[in-house]
Amino acid sequence: MPPIFDLNGMKLNLLVVGKTTSSELDTLIADYCGRLRHYVTFEMIVVPELKNTKSLSEAQQKQREGEQILQAVPASADMILLDEHGAEYRSIELAQWMQKKLTAGRDLWLVIGGPYGFSEEVYQRAKGKLSISRLTFSHQMIRLLVVEQLYRAFTILRGENYHHE
Amino acid sequence: MPPIFDLNGMKLNLLVVGKTTSSELDTLIADYCGRLRHYVTFEMIVVPELKNTKSLSEAQQKQREGEQILQAVPASADMILLDEHGAEYRSIELAQWMQKKLTAGRDLWLVIGGPYGFSEEVYQRAKGKLSISRLTFSHQMIRLLVVEQLYRAFTILRGENYHHE
Repeated sequence: MPPIFDLNGMKLNLLVVGKTTSSELDTLIADYCGRLRHYVTFEMIVVPELKNTKSLSEAQQKQREGEQILQAVPASADMILLDEHGAEYRSIELAQWMQKKLTAGRDLWLVIGGPYGFSEEVYQRAKGKLSISRLTFSHQMIRLLVVEQLYRAFTILRGENYHHE
Repeated sequence: MPPIFDLNGMKLNLLVVGKTTSSELDTLIADYCGRLRHYVTFEMIVVPELKNTKSLSEAQQKQREGEQILQAVPASADMILLDEHGAEYRSIELAQWMQKKLTAGRDLWLVIGGPYGFSEEVYQRAKGKLSISRLTFSHQMIRLLVVEQLYRAFTILRGENYHHE
């Protein structure tokens, strides 16, 4: 299969906080990850969930998760946060956005936060914010939405018969 | 558990076209359906998928699916379509919208169309359109998003610790 556009070895990464606890969600996510890898070098990276969170405030949880996120994402990468207050695209626009990002010369890291969102430090280092929906979904379900949408984006860029406008 | 507000026997229904083909999605959807029934009389109704669609154009498929939808939804009900071009709410706004609808004296039927969307006749009888996201998701995945969001709406109306703003 010929490449859609010259990725120059660029990698697409999805960073999430905590393992996917539902085996059904996990299976569905793995299916889309496999499909995505037909188009691009793709990795889903899981930052371990915090332990003993009962003694931590929401702010402290966000803070510690933020430190783990910032350690995991290379400084050279374009880090984009999945955030309800981010840019809202239609699927075709998202595909175009992704093509632009993946041909810009830096690896692309999309990050899905934990249940309480991101710390200020994470927001500061991020290069942008993407919104899946104005509605709030469980952060584990968002993973499925993101991998489906990334797969959809590649099928759009290739003109394949998956997306119907 | 006391009712959140007086539903007066109102029923919440979700109409979908075709069986859920992924057993994982089916399990996840059934889980949220069960949770929803702690709050409201809820039913997910499946209109059979069309057979022999290869000989039908997209317009013909939409037309026939539309006829089945209109037969299934009682004329007395409030029929609301899940549609990319519908109203976009935040989760709290959706909860308020649902409360208003469910206390208005008519059963509420939410409808998720097939892969090509709705026929003109369906649009004409509908009382409104709701959008889950500007992004397009598979019509089977939308089912999961809708039931999760309906469940989330009831937890918001009850002030339960599921939704984090």
